[in-house]
Order: sequence, then structure tokens, then C-alpha cells
Amino acid sequence: MTAIDDLKEYFTEIKRLSYVGSLLGWDQETYMPRGSVSGRAKQLSLVQKLIHQRLTSLEVGKLIQKAKKINNLNDIEAAMIRESEREYLHATKLPERLVIDITETGSQAVEAWRKAREEKKFKGSDFEPLLEKNVALQIEQAERLETHPDLYSTLIDLYEPGATYNWIANIFNKIKPKLVDFVKKLDSSSNKPKQDILRKKYNEDDQFKLSVEMIKKLNFDLNHGRQDRSTHPFTSSLSSVDTRITTRTTENFLNECIFGTIHECGHALYDMGFKKEIHDTILADGCSMGIHESQSRMWENIVGRSKEFWQYWYPTFQEYFPENLGNYPMEEFHRAVNVVKPSFIRVNADEVTYGLHIILRFEIEKDLIEGKIQINELADVWNSKFEELLGLTPKDDADGVLQDIHWSWGSIGYFPTYFLGSMYASQIYNDALKKKPSLPEDYAKGEFSNLLAYLRENVHQHGSIYRANDLIKRITGEDLNPDYFLKYIENKFYPIYGF
Amino acid sequence: MTAIDDLKEYFTEIKRLSYVGSLLGWDQETYMPRGSVSGRAKQLSLVQKLIHQRLTSLEVGKLIQKAKKINNLNDIEAAMIRESEREYLHATKLPERLVIDITETGSQAVEAWRKAREEKKFKGSDFEPLLEKNVALQIEQAERLETHPDLYSTLIDLYEPGATYNWIANIFNKIKPKLVDFVKKLDSSSNKPKQDILRKKYNEDDQFKLSVEMIKKLNFDLNHGRQDRSTHPFTSSLSSVDTRITTRTTENFLNECIFGTIHECGHALYDMGFKKEIHDTILADGCSMGIHESQSRMWENIVGRSKEFWQYWYPTFQEYFPENLGNYPMEEFHRAVNVVKPSFIRVNADEVTYGLHIILRFEIEKDLIEGKIQINELADVWNSKFEELLGLTPKDDADGVLQDIHWSWGSIGYFPTYFLGSMYASQIYNDALKKKPSLPEDYAKGEFSNLLAYLRENVHQHGSIYRANDLIKRITGEDLNPDYFLKYIENKFYPIYGF
Repeated sequence: MTAIDDLKEYFTEIKRLSYVGSLLGWDQETYMPRGSVSGRAKQLSLVQKLIHQRLTSLEVGKLIQKAKKINNLNDIEAAMIRESEREYLHATKLPERLVIDITETGSQAVEAWRKAREEKKFKGSDFEPLLEKNVALQIEQAERLETHPDLYSTLIDLYEPGATYNWIANIFNKIKPKLVDFVKKLDSSSNKPKQDILRKKYNEDDQFKLSVEMIKKLNFDLNHGRQDRSTHPFTSSLSSVDTRITTRTTENFLNECIFGTIHECGHALYDMGFKKEIHDTILADGCSMGIHESQSRMWENIVGRSKEFWQYWYPTFQEYFPENLGNYPMEEFHRAVNVVKPSFIRVNADEVTYGLHIILRFEIEKDLIEGKIQINELADVWNSKFEELLGLTPKDDADGVLQDIHWSWGSIGYFPTYFLGSMYASQIYNDALKKKPSLPEDYAKGEFSNLLAYLRENVHQHGSIYRANDLIKRITGEDLNPDYFLKYIENKFYPIYGF
Repeated sequence: MTAIDDLKEYFTEIKRLSYVGSLLGWDQETYMPRGSVSGRAKQLSLVQKLIHQRLTSLEVGKLIQKAKKINNLNDIEAAMIRESEREYLHATKLPERLVIDITETGSQAVEAWRKAREEKKFKGSDFEPLLEKNVALQIEQAERLETHPDLYSTLIDLYEPGATYNWIANIFNKIKPKLVDFVKKLDSSSNKPKQDILRKKYNEDDQFKLSVEMIKKLNFDLNHGRQDRSTHPFTSSLSSVDTRITTRTTENFLNECIFGTIHECGHALYDMGFKKEIHDTILADGCSMGIHESQSRMWENIVGRSKEFWQYWYPTFQEYFPENLGNYPMEEFHRAVNVVKPSFIRVNADEVTYGLHIILRFEIEKDLIEGKIQINELADVWNSKFEELLGLTPKDDADGVLQDIHWSWGSIGYFPTYFLGSMYASQIYNDALKKKPSLPEDYAKGEFSNLLAYLRENVHQHGSIYRANDLIKRITGEDLNPDYFLKYIENKFYPIYGF
């Protein structure tokens, strides 16, 4: 056994413990009886404790130092050391007191957030001081981790390793005015698509059955995964040969199940595609949240909302729902799933306005961490920024600053990765089309394996061997470039909106 | 914190790890995709390793010694020390090499057993030498554990703590001739019930739906448990507030699902009923396999095959299956589920002949462990004993010595607990009837909570605080006495068979 083998083995055990934790979580969201939460919570925190003990043991520090002395490492070996050290430093730089404080304050804040959201009022709520505490704890965390010179970059790095505030701000600032103008332009169209057809009554069991048909066709491997229902859709890997997704159905809104399923399927295809060599190792993971999101968004939006996709799928949908769709033209259905329209809630936003929702959060997070916004100003700042970016003013905080759970559990720096995902997706897809120009024609024939083969080859197999920025350069020869996203939405939406 | 608290906490962590292992197993048997076995196996053995490490650490030995010095222990405290020491000694007395050998030989033997059973031939099979090795390993295990002066008692003690070969042999020898005679007597009846009605076509989804209705009525708590399907029915506790059962359906045999479900429900009611004080502790378990089996068998046979039970349930069954049962009289249906008839396969045996299947295995196990039977004689010994006890000769080894999986995974000493379960059940139920004579009338009204209350009070709440033999004395005032079982079957089956 070399030092690298020892390190690999050590972190594979940690990975397996984290898979065990994922099963505890998956079961809790799918099949666990409602009254069994208390026992499960203790099991989850025990598994977390065991992982933490392993990450902070004296042994792991020595293993890493020993491995770092080896010369001529290949990419996988180098990445294993890099990621092991990353997790080790993260675990050892934070005192136990802080970790517990973050978890406990987060739990309280989530409860308070739910209540405040129900009451639709942030200012004066119990959630307000807890959010303030969350921010303070995240500042302390960033000060201790010190991955980057500025605090917000250190927090971003937790989700998008290697990314910084400046790098993202540069990209977001470039795209922001163009996006605002683009949304206005579409809004000026005299031939806007309507969503009404998606809001008819659709039998929920049929929706679920159809969604399983769809993921099969998208090459989701039911021998190494499954789909179930849950309140909030998610993807969970329980080993490198067991990736599960969930979906939800809404009787009077088809998008929820259909596009939610394709989205999670995109995540799952990534996790199902790591090369054997890194199975169950520390590298058996997406290389960043942004790259992970690029996979879900590519399948959901670029593929799943394309005309060719619906050329193939629409007849099946008509068979499932003849009353609603039997006489409804495919072209109009395709337009309906591509409505662009400013709205309050991020998770319901279309793929164009979505970026603006993210930019707003990104700018607020930066100012919160730097103390430029006080908590008692937060709702007002939100509303005025929202007006500026999306031309609407939230009527209450449930439609505004209280809509997302992320800040309540202490996640600051996560949001930007969602929009990075859209941009990574366009840039990677642009490359895929250059190499395989007939991809859209494939979709029209119900053939989705050629795109998957491209993604397996270029993205999936590598897991987290490469950092996001290296990966995008390896694939496309350049850094992340927002122009690809702009070009993609122009090419797609101008025709749909009759320009 | 007292030394007892420390010990309790220490073993509660081990218990939680074992629950995590149970979830890994439950998921594997219910929802896990087929291709995900390899990843799951590694997780299971990791959890086993963590448990073993904890059981053999220096710390636990010291904790036990410290706790043993405390005076004036209450029953729970004394039992915690007793059970902790039991697990500690079991883990530390066996060298790692032996434990691995038992597991690995067991795995190989299970595979070889499956093949041999398919080919219906034991002698000369690959399974034969592996079973020989299993026996040798069990002998070594017993020699090392040395819980009792004789080896077989030490193995029995693994499943039925405190029980010995002599004690069981005494009981079995007393009941054996009476059981043989009783079976012959029933066989001489000129008015024997027939099973044909149970072998009609019954829709499997309806069977499952009905079985869920039944467990609800039996007070299985769906807020702290659930029922799913699996290849082999089982009960699994995933915490003291999460007990799950599985069932299977067979289109042309109603018993499989109905009585299988009631059986597992009986196990589950036990696990759902531990007093809060011992939740998730080392005492949150049945006090022995025999007592656990007494609960499943009481519900399945004494309650579930009683006339009053069917007075309540039959109309519902008629509604579910009007074609088969609409015009079929309840009395005849009740007789059909109570057919007594010698047959080859233990798991399909009725509650009377079942004991003879067990006595046969008990006698053979004793001789195997003492070297009085050689492996190459095993099939012949089986067949001649079977002829002696049940009056039939297996036509091949699949119907004979190869029918059970237990020996292939190295379980020797487990079988007798099944029949002890039937006897414990009759004796406890006799006491329940003395205290609550109207129980059968309750069943006829669909009221099963009075029996459950009795069992909660006398059996369930105590978990493994008391040893089986103490428990039965506490409840009934006497040792296990096979006469209760004999009286029960006479009172029940003579009328059914027209005597």
C-alpha cells in the first residue's frame, strides 16, 4: 500500500459513512413513518459525529502530509490529496463549538423562518435576530477558514471550490444589464405564449408514470437508481452504484412533475457516470455545485424545453392526457413551456428571469457579509432591488425576502452557483453541438444517448478530479463566458416570441 | 453522570449503529435497486466493523467493571450491566480471524446451499464440505464462549439467553410422543377440513390492501411503522419509534400474505411496546428469540386462526373476494385455515406438526455438535428421523435436509426457539384468558386492544430487562410448561376435527 492508497482508503470509509447518512435522509423524505423523526435525528447526528471524528483525527493529517511528499502524481492522485486536505482543513479549522452553534441556530432559524413566512412578515419576526446570528456565524466561519482574502469568497468556495466573489461579480455584472433588457424586449412582444394549457387538471398518478417513462428514455439507469415521491424533489447518491431521485406532482400544474423530474434526472446522470476508478472515493462527487447544476439545467431547459424534445414526447403526452392535449398543437405546447415572465418566486422562475433572482441574492449576500446591509434593512433592500431588476415589487415578504430556506439554515454563498449552472450549461452545450451537430435531431427521434455519451466523456466520468474552472477550460478551451448563455437565450426565445 | 449512565449512553450509541445497519438491510430487501448490492455490502460491513470496534474497546470493559461496583441497582440497571457484559464478552472472546471466517464461510455456504437445493441433492454437493466447516466453526465459537459446560447449550444461549440443551430436551422429550400421537389421532378423523378454498385465485394487490387493513385493526401503529413487500417476510426495528414489517403475496395461496402479515405484526407489536425508559438502549429488544416468537405465533395462530377472529373478519374477506368466498360458509373457512397434516417443509407446516419439524432439527444439531453424526450421514439421518416423527419420507433433499437456510449461514441453536415460542405463547395466553376471559368475544367484535394491553403490561414493555425464564415465571407463576400447549391444541383441534 502506498501513502496514496492509505489516503484513498481512509476517505473512502468517510464517503461510505456519508452515503449511510444519505440513506438515513432519503428514507426520512420518502418512506419513514411520520412519528419516527426523533429516533432518526439521533442516528443522523451520530453518523455526522463519526464523520467529523475521522476528519479531525491525528492520523488523517499525517496521511495527507505523507502523500504530499510523493512525486509524479497523476491527476486522480493529485485530486485525492487536494480534496482530502480541503475536507481536513475545513473540519479542523472550525472549533466544535462553532459547528454546533451553526447547526443549532440553523435549526431554530428554520422553524422561525417557516412561521415568519406563514405570517408573511420579516421585520420584527423571531426569524430576524436568528438570521442576524446566522450571518455572524458565517462571518466567523469565513474568518477561520480563510480560504480567500475576502470573507464572501471563502463562503462561496464552500459550494464552488476555487470561485471568488470578484470572478463571479465580473460575470454577473457583464450579463445583468443585457438580461434586464432582454426580459423587457420579450415583454414588448405582441405574440407572447401563454401557460394556461399547463394549468389544466392532470391526473397525478399518470404524471408520475409518465415521468418514469421519460427518465428511462433519458437513460436514467433503473438498475442503479429509482424515482420516488417526496415533498421537495431531490437527488441523493447512496453509493456510486445507487442514485435516487424524487419528484412531486401537482394536479393543476404539469411543469412541477415533468420539468422537476428532468432536472433531478440531469443531476442523477452525473452521479451515475463517475469512472469506476473513483467509485465511492472522495472524488465520487460533482466538481462544484455550479457544474452539478449545469447538468440538471441542461437536461431540463436546453434539452427538455427544446422543440425537438417535444416533437418526440408530445404524442405520448397526448395519449396520456387526451382531454387536455388531444387537439392542442405541439407548437403551442412548446411555447407554453417557454413562457418568460418576471415573477416573485425564484423556484418558479423561467430560465431567463431566473438569473436576475440570483444576481439579487448574490449582491445582498455580499453586503450582508461585509456589514453594508443591516438586518433591519433587509426586506426594504430586497424589495427595491427586486423592482430594479425585475420591475415588480413584492406585495409581502413571503413573496420577497422570506421565500427561500437557504439563509435560514445558514447557507450563504450557495445561491450564485445556480446561475453559474445555467451559464456552464450553455457553454458546454455549445461545445457539444459543435462536436455533435445532429443532437437536436436525435431528440426528435427519442434518442438521448448521444448527448449523454458526450457528457459522460467530458463531464461525468471525472467526478471532482478537476476544479470547475479547469474542467470548463479542458472542455471548451476557454474560461466561463456568459456570452454563450446570452446567445442561447436569444436564439431560443426570439423565435418563440416572434422576433 | 453515574457509571450506569455512561454505560447506558455507550451502548445506546452501539444500538443506534445497529439500527443504521438495520435500515441498510431493510432498504436492501425492499426498495434498493438490484444493481446496487456491491456498494451496500461495503456499507453494511463498515457499520458492523464500527459496532465491533466499540464492543471490544478498552473503554467498555472499564465501564462495565465500574458499573458492577454500584450497589442497590434497580431491575433496569442490573439488566443493562448484564446485557452489556454479555455483548462485550461475546465480542472479546472471539478472535477477529474466527468472526471473519464464520462470515465468509457462511457467505460461500449460502451460495452453495442455493445451488444444492436447486439440484435437490446434498451428498456430494459443494455445500457438504462447507456445512462441515460451518459446524467446526460453531464448535470453535462455543469452545471460546464457554457460556455453558456443553457446547450446544452455549450455541443455544446465543438465541435464547439462559436456556440449556438439557432444559429444552426435557421439555421436548416430554411433548414429543404426545405430539406424534395427537397428529395420528387427528389423521384418523373421518371429517378432516380441506384447504382448497385457500388455493383459489386471489388478487395480490387486494390481498396486500386487506393485510394493511388487518394490521391497523390489530393496533399496528402506522405512525411508527409501515408494511412493504419483500421476497421473504421480516420485521425490522429501525429505532424504538420505527418498526417495519414486510409481507409477500401469492396469487393462489391466501395464507402466505394473511398469516404471514399477522405473524410479523405480532413481532412488531412487541418491538413497538418497550417502555420509554429503555427506548434505543441495549434493553430495547425482545428478551429472547423464543419470547419474540411467542408474540408472532400468539397473534398468528391463537388469535388469527380462532373462530372469533373470523367471525369478525370473514365478512370483509367476502367483500374483497366475493367470487371465491361470497357463498362459502365462515365455519368451513375457519376449518380450512386450521388443517393439520404432516408435510415436508417446516415453513409451510401447521402449528401442530411444526413442533415435530423443530424437534428433529434440535436432535440433529445436538449430535452434529457432539460429532455423533458425520456430515455424510446427515441426509440419511434426516430422512429416517422424519419418517419416525412425521410418518413421511422426503422424496429428495430439497424437501428434506436442504430446505432451511439457517445451517448454511452457520446458525446452529436457533431452531429450538421457534417451538419454544409456540409453548411460551400458549402458557402466556392461558394467563391472559384467566385475567381477561372475554378476550375471544372481543375479537368477534373486532376489538384487539385488550389482548394488546395485556401483552404490553406483561411482556412488551420490559424489553430484555428480564430473561425469558424469569419473565414467564413473573407472568404465570411457573416455569415453561409444555402442558399448556398440549391443552391448547386439544381444545382447539378436537372440535375442528370432529372429536
